[in-house]
Amino acid sequence: MLAEFNIQRPDNSLRQKAIDKIDNLNKPKGSLGMLEDIALQLCLVQQTLNPKLTHPCHLLLGGDHGIEKEGVSLSPREITWQQMINFTKGGGGVNMFCRQHGFTLKLVDTGVDYDLSSFSDIRDCKIDYGTANFLYGPAMTEVQYLEAIENGASLAEECIDEGCNILSIGEMGIANTSPSSIWMSLFQDFPLDECIGAGSGLDSKGVEHKKKILSQALERFLEEYPEPTPEEIIIYFGGFEMVTAIGAMLKAAELKTTILIDGFIMTACALAATRLYPECQDYMIFCHCGDESGHRRMLDGMGAKPVLNLGLRLGEGTGALCAYPIIESAVRMINEMNNFQNAKITKYF
Amino acid sequence: MLAEFNIQRPDNSLRQKAIDKIDNLNKPKGSLGMLEDIALQLCLVQQTLNPKLTHPCHLLLGGDHGIEKEGVSLSPREITWQQMINFTKGGGGVNMFCRQHGFTLKLVDTGVDYDLSSFSDIRDCKIDYGTANFLYGPAMTEVQYLEAIENGASLAEECIDEGCNILSIGEMGIANTSPSSIWMSLFQDFPLDECIGAGSGLDSKGVEHKKKILSQALERFLEEYPEPTPEEIIIYFGGFEMVTAIGAMLKAAELKTTILIDGFIMTACALAATRLYPECQDYMIFCHCGDESGHRRMLDGMGAKPVLNLGLRLGEGTGALCAYPIIESAVRMINEMNNFQNAKITKYF
Repeated sequence: MLAEFNIQRPDNSLRQKAIDKIDNLNKPKGSLGMLEDIALQLCLVQQTLNPKLTHPCHLLLGGDHGIEKEGVSLSPREITWQQMINFTKGGGGVNMFCRQHGFTLKLVDTGVDYDLSSFSDIRDCKIDYGTANFLYGPAMTEVQYLEAIENGASLAEECIDEGCNILSIGEMGIANTSPSSIWMSLFQDFPLDECIGAGSGLDSKGVEHKKKILSQALERFLEEYPEPTPEEIIIYFGGFEMVTAIGAMLKAAELKTTILIDGFIMTACALAATRLYPECQDYMIFCHCGDESGHRRMLDGMGAKPVLNLGLRLGEGTGALCAYPIIESAVRMINEMNNFQNAKITKYF
Repeated sequence: MLAEFNIQRPDNSLRQKAIDKIDNLNKPKGSLGMLEDIALQLCLVQQTLNPKLTHPCHLLLGGDHGIEKEGVSLSPREITWQQMINFTKGGGGVNMFCRQHGFTLKLVDTGVDYDLSSFSDIRDCKIDYGTANFLYGPAMTEVQYLEAIENGASLAEECIDEGCNILSIGEMGIANTSPSSIWMSLFQDFPLDECIGAGSGLDSKGVEHKKKILSQALERFLEEYPEPTPEEIIIYFGGFEMVTAIGAMLKAAELKTTILIDGFIMTACALAATRLYPECQDYMIFCHCGDESGHRRMLDGMGAKPVLNLGLRLGEGTGALCAYPIIESAVRMINEMNNFQNAKITKYF
């Protein structure tokens, strides 16, 4: 393993007590559905029957992709840096939902193809001005990969040091559905075509072109790496924002912190993270299933049940942020709902 | 029509302007999915391009059902009054979610089979100590129906007078999935069997018994009323809490107020309301699709797309309340998100 983390599954000895507590709240058993699942998971992650959410943080990671040059995305590359600057002014999707739910927002340049150093609100974790074009070779070097993983780990650790016990991660990176689709295909053994969708809005001709380019890239990769390791897959196709996200996820899991997983791209990063350390999935809440082709299958393949299905495909972590109040509802449930004894209610089912 | 309301569809002349505003926010067109649909609906209902949510109120309507005596519900009748009292102490599902989202909660006895008059926090709109058993005749009289409709209308009007522009409604009434299933079958012309589910947790034997009882009741009704009017259907099978809900929905629509529709039972009430006044549906947001058999079909039949699918089946309006922050997100989007011009972003798709 190139980057080492010490990730343990949550201690399961509390499980039955948590289930008993949830089942004894004054409601028919199971009748609060997914809220009960989330509450149980938080009990195990936090090792308490009274979980809390403290100092929620959102990492917005921006990065550009060499593969964008092949016309695989409807949106042009310049959107990445323009949006990063827009976020500093508070006018993006990610900003308003962070305000709504009280998240501390950290904007991070992991590899945007533009000089953002004059913006004091944007953290400089830039590895390079975008990745290399994976149609012709690896998107990044091993050294760059390790740097990005380390950056993500440091960002997560910083949030947790500040008191955060629930970490959300979003991305801004034109063309990053492309590496996500390839990761899905390689990690879950689905035919590549079935992992590719319209991204931010390609028409059918555009999708066909994207499929052609990505299968060429995949073919070339598999010639060179007939039996690739997870790390080789991540390095060859990944974006800097995606690898930084993986580093943040792994460190958060090591530090026993709940991680909110956003849409298609962040699910692909979560998938990659679980191929490095399967134990990290116990710390993840999958927040949103979007319309991007294959997202539902990718989640199913991970055994993950998403909290929301709002048809969002903006990225930025908006799906994760929109799910946060539902997670708060689960916390309210287990802490504030009366049980059958103190409510003086006949136990019912 | 026994009860008269003056319900107009929202003026559609603002529609194109609202769509243009939403499409010009700095995001790929359509990429905020259901948030965009909700924002558009709120613009039309409130006749503004800057909708707001003010003084949200939740009506919790309790009532008992004569049909409960036939063993169609796993939970016993006494749960209704015990839960109503529990709600006065703040320990129910409805309480914690009202607190979370700042709803004013109004507890209302519309027909609970218990004397709740000593509880000052429970509004007395009691029609009777539960409805009559519709296996043998109508659940209520025409006079009772009108009284319940009028009570609901007054409750909605009171909330709106206090400044509420978003009204949520929930119920507590053991056995009320039974009338809901029959309404669905009659109003949407689905075979009764396909409208009946496990309620709060019947096993397969229990579901079979429920089906037998309800089809007997339906058969008898159709002998007496071979071509029933919507009002005859509502009166014969309805609960007092359900008819009160219909009255509240119709008055809210008359007063151009957004209505949050909860799960299976409240969807059945919304369905009944639209059979009286189809125009009222324009004011409704369908908040949750539960697991109760038939709920998805009932929503599909109404052309309604639910906001959440959390597997909730508690009732009380918990699904509507949990969806509220998503509606707030839609309002944030249309009011706070930059557009392409002021964000200085290349328009993308």
